[in-house]
Amino acid sequence: MNLTDKTYQELKTSLINILGHNGVVADSKGVEVLSRTNVPHRNIPSFVVYPQDASDVQGVLCMARKHGVPVWPVSTGKNWGYGSKSAAYPGGITMVLERMNRIIEINEELGTAIIEPGVTYAQLNTYLKENGIKLWVDSSGSTKDASIIGNALDKGRGVTPYADHFGSLCGMEVVLPDGRKIRTGGGPQDGYPSWNTYKWGTGLFVDGLFAQSNLGIVVQAGLWLMPEPEAYDFFVFEYTAGEDQFADFLKDFRSLIFKGVIKSRPHLANDFAMLCILDQYPNDLLNGKQYLDPEAMQIWKKRMKVPEWTFGCGLYGTKEEVRLHKSITKKTLSRYGSTHMTGICAEKNFMGRMANRIARLVLRLQGKSPQFLDSLIPAIELFKGIPTDHFVKQVYFKSFDQKPASEFEPARDGCGFVWIGPVVPFSPEHISKLMNLVKPLYKKHEFEFFLEIIIESPRSVISLFGLFYDKKSPDESRRAMALYKDIRDVAYKHGYPPYRASVESTQTALDCNPLLKSLITDLKTALDPNNILAPGRYGARARKRE
Amino acid sequence: MNLTDKTYQELKTSLINILGHNGVVADSKGVEVLSRTNVPHRNIPSFVVYPQDASDVQGVLCMARKHGVPVWPVSTGKNWGYGSKSAAYPGGITMVLERMNRIIEINEELGTAIIEPGVTYAQLNTYLKENGIKLWVDSSGSTKDASIIGNALDKGRGVTPYADHFGSLCGMEVVLPDGRKIRTGGGPQDGYPSWNTYKWGTGLFVDGLFAQSNLGIVVQAGLWLMPEPEAYDFFVFEYTAGEDQFADFLKDFRSLIFKGVIKSRPHLANDFAMLCILDQYPNDLLNGKQYLDPEAMQIWKKRMKVPEWTFGCGLYGTKEEVRLHKSITKKTLSRYGSTHMTGICAEKNFMGRMANRIARLVLRLQGKSPQFLDSLIPAIELFKGIPTDHFVKQVYFKSFDQKPASEFEPARDGCGFVWIGPVVPFSPEHISKLMNLVKPLYKKHEFEFFLEIIIESPRSVISLFGLFYDKKSPDESRRAMALYKDIRDVAYKHGYPPYRASVESTQTALDCNPLLKSLITDLKTALDPNNILAPGRYGARARKRE
Repeated sequence: MNLTDKTYQELKTSLINILGHNGVVADSKGVEVLSRTNVPHRNIPSFVVYPQDASDVQGVLCMARKHGVPVWPVSTGKNWGYGSKSAAYPGGITMVLERMNRIIEINEELGTAIIEPGVTYAQLNTYLKENGIKLWVDSSGSTKDASIIGNALDKGRGVTPYADHFGSLCGMEVVLPDGRKIRTGGGPQDGYPSWNTYKWGTGLFVDGLFAQSNLGIVVQAGLWLMPEPEAYDFFVFEYTAGEDQFADFLKDFRSLIFKGVIKSRPHLANDFAMLCILDQYPNDLLNGKQYLDPEAMQIWKKRMKVPEWTFGCGLYGTKEEVRLHKSITKKTLSRYGSTHMTGICAEKNFMGRMANRIARLVLRLQGKSPQFLDSLIPAIELFKGIPTDHFVKQVYFKSFDQKPASEFEPARDGCGFVWIGPVVPFSPEHISKLMNLVKPLYKKHEFEFFLEIIIESPRSVISLFGLFYDKKSPDESRRAMALYKDIRDVAYKHGYPPYRASVESTQTALDCNPLLKSLITDLKTALDPNNILAPGRYGARARKRE
Repeated sequence: MNLTDKTYQELKTSLINILGHNGVVADSKGVEVLSRTNVPHRNIPSFVVYPQDASDVQGVLCMARKHGVPVWPVSTGKNWGYGSKSAAYPGGITMVLERMNRIIEINEELGTAIIEPGVTYAQLNTYLKENGIKLWVDSSGSTKDASIIGNALDKGRGVTPYADHFGSLCGMEVVLPDGRKIRTGGGPQDGYPSWNTYKWGTGLFVDGLFAQSNLGIVVQAGLWLMPEPEAYDFFVFEYTAGEDQFADFLKDFRSLIFKGVIKSRPHLANDFAMLCILDQYPNDLLNGKQYLDPEAMQIWKKRMKVPEWTFGCGLYGTKEEVRLHKSITKKTLSRYGSTHMTGICAEKNFMGRMANRIARLVLRLQGKSPQFLDSLIPAIELFKGIPTDHFVKQVYFKSFDQKPASEFEPARDGCGFVWIGPVVPFSPEHISKLMNLVKPLYKKHEFEFFLEIIIESPRSVISLFGLFYDKKSPDESRRAMALYKDIRDVAYKHGYPPYRASVESTQTALDCNPLLKSLITDLKTALDPNNILAPGRYGARARKRE
């Protein structure tokens, strides 16, 4: 949308009145930098605003309603590869909630927290550690500076037994598009002791209305944290069996998860996905091509000693359970590859340091790269809820010559990558079907095939396809976009909708189900008739008035 | 509401046109019997109708809209003690979905089913067993003839690791008040393989709108079933420590659940709750009083060898896990009472029969009643997902001289009882606080104190208070109603809303949170502006048009 000069000036004055100069970015350079994305697509807003509390949120919404200018809320906007802080349209107000970052309450006994949307994994983890609270916060595999609530509301995933981030929210305080501030759960607005302990509440369960949606801005939420288990271990599995055994492997893997032997929610990374983490892009192997052909990939894989599939995995429980689960896991998986048990290496004591040295030595002798060894400790820690930026730096591996050592911001720095993660039943038939449909598309568009099979539950996986491209090259950007669209089309065509939409695809996210979309349109029309709150997000948009 | 003669006749003709004579009950005797309840309160409808499929449901709703007569849907209406088939108002159409009882699909590999709302625990369990499918269906502790979907939508509970019935639903087909039939989940309406494997779907999660609500009629739903574990055992725990140790016991109990040593969701029954199951009401001990005073209770408890608190509990896992969990449980709980491990007794082989005989002998020597022994096998089976009517017959224990051997229907037979289950954080302070607030109310109204602490999760319990009364006595009914209201008031006052409402209380279920109620009113107004679908259920009612 284009604001008239008058609206722009009036709105700017009002926003500054509410938030102060420090809370409003209106200059063209500022809004340009803040709306940068890793995906090929983005939109530049008129304003980026930073509320400090719920009443600021209400104030901004009030002005937005008055001027008819839409508000696109993000928590910290670090959903890199999905759209970051960019709205699905240009010219509106982008609301960044990162300054609302209070940890309001921790209940160690019941394993609950109440936090604001600006609270990050790193912040909560540090708070817990510094206060000696024996609870773990499950972290996304992306940056430690992402918002816990933001990721959960976008149905993001972690890797510990508390990997289901939306499922781990319990109790919300929400500002509705018309400014009402409600609390979900069905108990009294104040003085409701089970607000953060009982998810379903009394009466209809409305919390789901605020996930992947635009019906309200969550300004506080309850979160379940995992009590530190008595024992923990970690292993890396490398799949070395042939392709013909992959279906059996998936079935056995699933059975370990169904049984609770594996309570962790690992990501099964294909060769290229693993190489992105371990290495820089080997331009020397391109041979004049635009991408690494199968021969080049083979050379690279050999060079880095990377197998077809790799996953890391935590084990949790009493000492005896962890011992037992280790032995069952080893026995079950040894048919398909090798299992390196290395959990002890991250322990901060003499034994841990010794084990780490020995493990490095042994793995080095097995031919593992130094990068593999360097990834070990961050991985072990990630599976015990300690967030890390170690893995997310992979996104620099193609756009830049070197992964950054510290200070980094892939959106700002223009690293080109896109994620698309169709949801697939956890059965070899479905997983292979989609994989075989998508793989040729990468070849067609001249990219390397990237797949991480994210274990969602024993019943579903997310087949996360990644696209890395050079954002500075218009041709690569165009090809990346074309590949993205092809993957999306084929996934929808076969009934595998992505678990998460990007700024590019969000408006059409529900087009595959017009009847459901009509219900959601009804809800949006009832709660936000003038489309003030993030219109189009996940397909929800109020009907035009008759 | 009162229908005019003309409306009544026209509607009757239309309903018979859609459902046939066999599908419509309109005679006054018929509707009277079908609307009977166990609670003191009930309303008699104009019609009771039995759709056979979704298009029947749509047809009835269409006629209801045309004539402005509300429809109160129930699945099988066996929510005894909450209101059974009675609507919250008289004169409407009660829709019973029990004839929609198809088991549409079972996927053994992924542990999922698709069923209609008429499918009962007994029916699905029989189907699984007859077809050699190694999946368990978690059953409510009430009747085996209850609807699986109905119980789940009312947020009912079971006792196995799949006790969270609403949480175990995945994917719904719903007829909205205006007749649209939608599928939730965000994938295509047809051909969406993850419909029953991934709960949160794409875009906003709407399934919660159909739990404890009146925004739609669920005509099909996906259900997660538990894969049969490698090993199973069962124990009965009897709390014999003093009152001063109860807080420590609750903490240790909670810790076993947090750790997953106990994956089951047991009910901790107080003395009177246990006696209801084991015995008939001892009128001989009344001594001219209206209820059993503390002395009488002591005599009765001694007679039946019932301790202060009792619970049964399943253990699930690999053989080694079950062995390990048994030993941890025994060690932890032995401080507070005795643990009888008896899982083997229900095994249908020589060892099982032997063990059963030995256990009976041992328990008999310990002074256990024959009734205790008779309850053992049904309990062991219930915790492995085999439904039973053994326990629900307790509801006859006061209204009738004898519990029925077979054929029984507490609503029809007029057994007087009411449940109210406030949700309480799983902390000794909260549990004791509410217990101590409620206990004196029983004395005030001259009833015996009944409490089952239902383990909802490691974070919450449901303090289920039961009221048994003689429905034939107007005085007892009046006192029961007064006690119910007192419990409800005190629970709400201290922020413990009941997890489930009864026909008496449903209309005011959300009065404690006017802001949340206003949101729900918006939703109801958007989807059912003329209040055709169960107006008032869980407090949801469309706003009058301006």
